[in-house]
Amino acid sequence: MELFALSDVPEVREGDDLAAIVEDRVDLRADDVLCVASTVVSKADGRTVNLDDVTAGDRARAIAERLEAITGEAKDPRFAQVVLEESNDLVMEAPFILSETRFGHITVNAGIDRSNVPEADLLLLPEDPTGSAERLHEELGVPVVVTDTCGRPFRHGQRGVAIGWAGMPASRDWRGETDRDGRELGVTVESVVDELAAASNLLAGEGDGGTPFVVVREFDFGDHGGSDNLFREYDDDLIRQALQAWEFPG
Amino acid sequence: MELFALSDVPEVREGDDLAAIVEDRVDLRADDVLCVASTVVSKADGRTVNLDDVTAGDRARAIAERLEAITGEAKDPRFAQVVLEESNDLVMEAPFILSETRFGHITVNAGIDRSNVPEADLLLLPEDPTGSAERLHEELGVPVVVTDTCGRPFRHGQRGVAIGWAGMPASRDWRGETDRDGRELGVTVESVVDELAAASNLLAGEGDGGTPFVVVREFDFGDHGGSDNLFREYDDDLIRQALQAWEFPG
Ligand SMILES: Nc1nc2c(ncn2[C@@H]2O[C@H](COP(=O)(O)OP(=O)(O)O)[C@@H](O)[C@H]2O)c(=O)[nH]1
Ligand SMILES: Nc1nc2c(ncn2[C@@H]2O[C@H](COP(=O)(O)OP(=O)(O)O)[C@@H](O)[C@H]2O)c(=O)[nH]1
Ligand SMILES: [Mn+2]
Ligand SMILES: [Mn+2]
Ligand SMILES: [Mn+2]
Ligand SMILES: [Mn+2]
Repeated sequence: MELFALSDVPEVREGDDLAAIVEDRVDLRADDVLCVASTVVSKADGRTVNLDDVTAGDRARAIAERLEAITGEAKDPRFAQVVLEESNDLVMEAPFILSETRFGHITVNAGIDRSNVPEADLLLLPEDPTGSAERLHEELGVPVVVTDTCGRPFRHGQRGVAIGWAGMPASRDWRGETDRDGRELGVTVESVVDELAAASNLLAGEGDGGTPFVVVREFDFGDHGGSDNLFREYDDDLIRQALQAWEFPG
Repeated sequence: MELFALSDVPEVREGDDLAAIVEDRVDLRADDVLCVASTVVSKADGRTVNLDDVTAGDRARAIAERLEAITGEAKDPRFAQVVLEESNDLVMEAPFILSETRFGHITVNAGIDRSNVPEADLLLLPEDPTGSAERLHEELGVPVVVTDTCGRPFRHGQRGVAIGWAGMPASRDWRGETDRDGRELGVTVESVVDELAAASNLLAGEGDGGTPFVVVREFDFGDHGGSDNLFREYDDDLIRQALQAWEFPG
């Protein structure tokens, strides 16, 4: 399996044709998977926001005040407003906002970025990353994974995850298969789109690399079942239930 | 960047020399990273347990009874006993046991496996995966990442993560670097060992593949700071605090 980033990718602007940018830079093969940083999907879709265009409501103002009191740092209530608008539901509101995005992904500040956004204050995540992946998949003919970099419980730091995918299942389903000794497997559902996103992030990086597109060549999904069930629903997510029941002591 | 699994790896037994198994199968290069599934590290270290040798204490019996009542499935109190012995601290005890292993990793059932373990009932995680990685790194001369497959909050399924590493920092520290427009970065600490573990899991798989060793060739860490701070401490982990404060309603 080989991974490489596409080079000489321009600054992406609203309306840009991402499939054409890719096709101009690589002859994709049938066994390739294309990983795309959500940043450029959002830019192509015009998902920028300027804070001057935002009016904070009561809830956003209350959240920003509380975060200001906790952290001792100025918090813009208009930013909290945008996070609320991008969220189905809040999982935690202090000491940082953890929420479920419209498409079911749980992340800090609804995944809104301030880096690598030249022409506006904020860049929202794509409205429907799987829809975006589907369009790119149709145009390019290979599986597409839309990635973001985000944190996770229990561990420091961040890593690449999939937020949308098309042309392949999200997970390899190992149920019904056996281990080396014919016993049932403990691990049954392997989130390969997350593993692909993590791998591609090793090349995309977080800074000024200019490498939002990474091709994974000769990844072998293998002869397994597949599943597209990546984001847990509330009823099925005890950790989220525990967090929503909890109140930050401060 | 290229990844390949070593082939013709034998069944690993207590006392086996993993470095020799690797060296017999590949000429490692200076820019390689070796990812090793923890299963074979544990096997070489003899970390197997037979339930007949375990006596469950009161706490393990209480936990197993509760889990039996909740799930309607028989639960062996001796298994709960082993999980307790492998744990520094429990994060949740129902409806499944989530705990911190001795070396700081939070995972279900202390990461104890029943798959790919021919000669015993259970396989524990390595006692000190970073120590194991250090020994392999000294013998092989390349960075080593010890991996496991485990679940995570908010998402279905499991994926590869690092539980030990040596010869390279756990994370790329992007602090002080800037984005394409000279602005400060939002993502500052990228857990590259987790990203490498996820990538290698795409080739190692969960079943009878027999491929616990994956070489990552030409991964470029780049000119960044590094950090080895991967597992959050209790005081620094709000999600864990919230979970420990929570009581499963059932
Ligand atoms: N060429 C190019 N690279 C970009 C652009 N926007 C972001 N990048 C690069 O894409 C990669 C990922 O950027 P990042 O901000 O971490 O995106 P995210 O993980 O999707 O939030 C980095 O190498 C950035 O330099 C763009 O418009 N053009
Ligand atoms: N050759 C060989 N492969 C093994 C052995 N034990 C496990 N594996 C393989 O190692 C890979 C990872 O196994 P898994 O049970 O998922 O390990 P874990 O992720 O570390 O818990 C799979 O390809 C297994 O078939 C062994 O003793 N010898
Ligand atoms: Mn982002
Ligand atoms: Mn990123
Ligand atoms: Mn395991
Ligand atoms: Mn595994």
